[in-house]
Amino acid sequence: MKKLSIKLLLVACFFTVTTAHAQESVDTATFNKIRKAELSNSHIEQIAHYLTDVAGPRLTNSPGYQRAATWAIETMKKWGLVNAKMEPWGEFGKQWDLQDFSISMKLPYMQPIMAYPNPWSPSTNGLQQAQVVLLPGGKMMDTVYIKQHLADYKGKFILVHGSKINTSGNFKPSAERLTDSALAHTSDTYMVERKMIEMYLGTYVKLIARVDALLKNSGAIAVISTGPQNINGTVFVQANGGFKATDPENLPTLNISVEDGQKIKRLIDGGQPVELALNIKATLSTADTKGYNVVAEIPGTDPKLKAQLVMLGGHLDSWTAATGATDNAAGCIVMMEAVRLLDSLGIKPKRTIRIALWGGEEQGLYGSYGYVKNHFMDTDGKLKSEQSKVSAYFNLDNGTGKIRGIYAQGNIAIKPIFEQWLAPFKDLGANTVSLKNTGSTDHLSFDWAGIPGFQFIQDPIDYETRTHHSNMDSYDHLQLADLKQAAIIVASFVYQASIKPDLLPRKAIVKETFAFEGF
Amino acid sequence: MKKLSIKLLLVACFFTVTTAHAQESVDTATFNKIRKAELSNSHIEQIAHYLTDVAGPRLTNSPGYQRAATWAIETMKKWGLVNAKMEPWGEFGKQWDLQDFSISMKLPYMQPIMAYPNPWSPSTNGLQQAQVVLLPGGKMMDTVYIKQHLADYKGKFILVHGSKINTSGNFKPSAERLTDSALAHTSDTYMVERKMIEMYLGTYVKLIARVDALLKNSGAIAVISTGPQNINGTVFVQANGGFKATDPENLPTLNISVEDGQKIKRLIDGGQPVELALNIKATLSTADTKGYNVVAEIPGTDPKLKAQLVMLGGHLDSWTAATGATDNAAGCIVMMEAVRLLDSLGIKPKRTIRIALWGGEEQGLYGSYGYVKNHFMDTDGKLKSEQSKVSAYFNLDNGTGKIRGIYAQGNIAIKPIFEQWLAPFKDLGANTVSLKNTGSTDHLSFDWAGIPGFQFIQDPIDYETRTHHSNMDSYDHLQLADLKQAAIIVASFVYQASIKPDLLPRKAIVKETFAFEGF
Repeated sequence: MKKLSIKLLLVACFFTVTTAHAQESVDTATFNKIRKAELSNSHIEQIAHYLTDVAGPRLTNSPGYQRAATWAIETMKKWGLVNAKMEPWGEFGKQWDLQDFSISMKLPYMQPIMAYPNPWSPSTNGLQQAQVVLLPGGKMMDTVYIKQHLADYKGKFILVHGSKINTSGNFKPSAERLTDSALAHTSDTYMVERKMIEMYLGTYVKLIARVDALLKNSGAIAVISTGPQNINGTVFVQANGGFKATDPENLPTLNISVEDGQKIKRLIDGGQPVELALNIKATLSTADTKGYNVVAEIPGTDPKLKAQLVMLGGHLDSWTAATGATDNAAGCIVMMEAVRLLDSLGIKPKRTIRIALWGGEEQGLYGSYGYVKNHFMDTDGKLKSEQSKVSAYFNLDNGTGKIRGIYAQGNIAIKPIFEQWLAPFKDLGANTVSLKNTGSTDHLSFDWAGIPGFQFIQDPIDYETRTHHSNMDSYDHLQLADLKQAAIIVASFVYQASIKPDLLPRKAIVKETFAFEGF
Repeated sequence: MKKLSIKLLLVACFFTVTTAHAQESVDTATFNKIRKAELSNSHIEQIAHYLTDVAGPRLTNSPGYQRAATWAIETMKKWGLVNAKMEPWGEFGKQWDLQDFSISMKLPYMQPIMAYPNPWSPSTNGLQQAQVVLLPGGKMMDTVYIKQHLADYKGKFILVHGSKINTSGNFKPSAERLTDSALAHTSDTYMVERKMIEMYLGTYVKLIARVDALLKNSGAIAVISTGPQNINGTVFVQANGGFKATDPENLPTLNISVEDGQKIKRLIDGGQPVELALNIKATLSTADTKGYNVVAEIPGTDPKLKAQLVMLGGHLDSWTAATGATDNAAGCIVMMEAVRLLDSLGIKPKRTIRIALWGGEEQGLYGSYGYVKNHFMDTDGKLKSEQSKVSAYFNLDNGTGKIRGIYAQGNIAIKPIFEQWLAPFKDLGANTVSLKNTGSTDHLSFDWAGIPGFQFIQDPIDYETRTHHSNMDSYDHLQLADLKQAAIIVASFVYQASIKPDLLPRKAIVKETFAFEGF
């Protein structure tokens, strides 16, 4: 319903806004100053190194997250930002710290296995060698089937295998940039109420928990999964729940490559017993189960406007198979570089600029949602006073690709404004304002509370095919030149929003502001 | 010199052979029978499973090689082939058996490392945890530099790093098929005398041995290498020497991904000490240092011709990071399937068909060269009687891609013959006869002894970019349909050679019959 009505509105509006709209006073002189500074003295490389290589994987509430947050706060303080701090946003869950991991096939012969433990996996209590038994992926949620096979699992590794994956060669590139045609036809994201997502997630997580409890009681050693994208040296690794303080300790879990998984399955199907040796050593702590974001500010300089805010952010948390470079150190790097540029150039924003680096995004946008609930609107829809003071929130979380435009998220009045702001960046490849919704990241929390929240349109590079949530999400998969381009545009947008005479126009608050797809 | 003269000859010959050549009596009825049998009842999948999944990595003289050889012999006996056996070809070297391997980064935080021990690496004597020190790749052969830094290496891991590798995204496909234009312009390979290669290899291996001895005496724990292609989850793993019975035991060596290598280098360059924990457990045995090939025959049925031979083969040995599926289980699978087809169809070859699966190819074509020296010609150029009885040797060792044609290896008289033999396979994509030389595999040993030896032209797929010698060289990277096509063509060619009234025409014996590139 909503999708249709928005589309009709868009058509109606297109003719209006393209024929007459207010002229924006775009400060291109400052835009050029920002661009020149970034291209001559960028800190992108250094920030990227610290947030990925030095911090390591940044799972929400993990030591890696703490290292990254601490470094970001100290660094932004050094740059001159104020109120730089960790800010708790609510209850999250357990702190997971991986201390040791090894796996190999031992029978019929020794061979390394490409594998990564899933976050919040408990320890195996030392090195465990045992046979593998198969559990068809289609039966993974079938408690009747599992109950019938419980005796088979005792003392074994359970390999959950899907249908045969055909690694069809790599005749298509895994990375791409958006064509003009793709930019002209950005896809729309179907939005639903947050509570629908939480109900779905709740039901799903509960079902998984029931299966996990069954498998644990079977006396199996660990559950090994794979996925259709885990080919060609890329392994995607994440967790579905299991992190809450009250969640029981389940079996150790890990993800392996399709090549290894299918080999093991073929051997077992052919009557060859397969033994693996696995060691996972990890600690799960409930010493501090609160979730934290990182925030910092560049104070506004206009006495009348400095109480108002322009916000920008990305999520600092990541999954664990690599160092979360494109998901989403990239966004944090760009946002930190944007505030560094603004601060170091002595540009005087009229409104206060607040950067936020979120935790808990990967588990359900928790950090930004918690922050918005604390600051702007409660779950009953009751607005807090700060809500009216935020002009906009700008987010970057679609990988390492440069900015090609921005999703106006159905905010019709904003389209002509952003078109004028973007005009000076046409030569950098960014000149598309799409009225479509895009989902799956933290601008949705702002959209939910009636605050204009935007995600930029980015070149996909190999974000979907290879890097996000995978063992390939490391520093060397960043496109540093793209991040510099993004920092120039974000800094310019944020600055322009801070000096615009009025706040950016808002949509009416609607309930359906969260995307139903994975985060 | 040779290259030029051959080219002139080719030009002269082109006009001759295209205007007048003998008509071949091609047995297309049998070709069709072979094709139908392969397409309706192929054993490719099963052979592939056994040679890769079940045998495991097939390093020359290793237990995996033994498993594969034993299975191939038993299987071919079951099919009805005769004289199936392991045949020693001469002195090779140590048997290496990997029994345990684990590696992870421990400081500044724990994280898995994508790494594989190099073949013939000795054990680390248990799990060793220590700091990493850097050795620039450009200094790897600089004994003066290394001597100056020996004290730095004591008790440490030495990371040999090259120049920064830019993982530029993957905007180009890594796999491809040959275009008509590529087929029309196959490249020529510069050929040299075998003794030149052995001199070069000898010098190179001696220099490496000197460096290895220096590093070992430094008291370092292991040498860690990477290479410019070790990106995106692919790690290439091989060894330069170290396998001969008289070779000293060097330091443990391993190969890691560029992503891991560059991260470690950036951390160390940034003043962050990096510690790894490594365990390699491997046995090096000199109980049997002879090298072995696998041979088997389908006896010829013509009393006058059955003493003559048509040979076909691929190399059974592989490197160790995966199961050597495309290099070169693929060739062995196709050759085994070809003889199975011929045998199971009750086709009566006039000449005897002999299949050979070589060992020691990866270390320098040793298995085929040794075989040819034992059977056909000694190193002084003295021919043995069997030399005159071999019509041709057909080889397949350019990966998993289907056959697009054949390299005539400068054999001008053979071009019109092969063109007629290939004509029935135009619809399968194979219709190019190139007069060019191609190098790097076992047909060269036959060429050296004056026996027509041929390698087919194959679609490259992702052989060069991803699979050969790498951790990606596993069953799931085989193109099974391509292997079926190849088996049809090879079986047909071998059969046709077996019934041709005369032996295939020969070139004069020249000294320059080995390619200088890597094997």
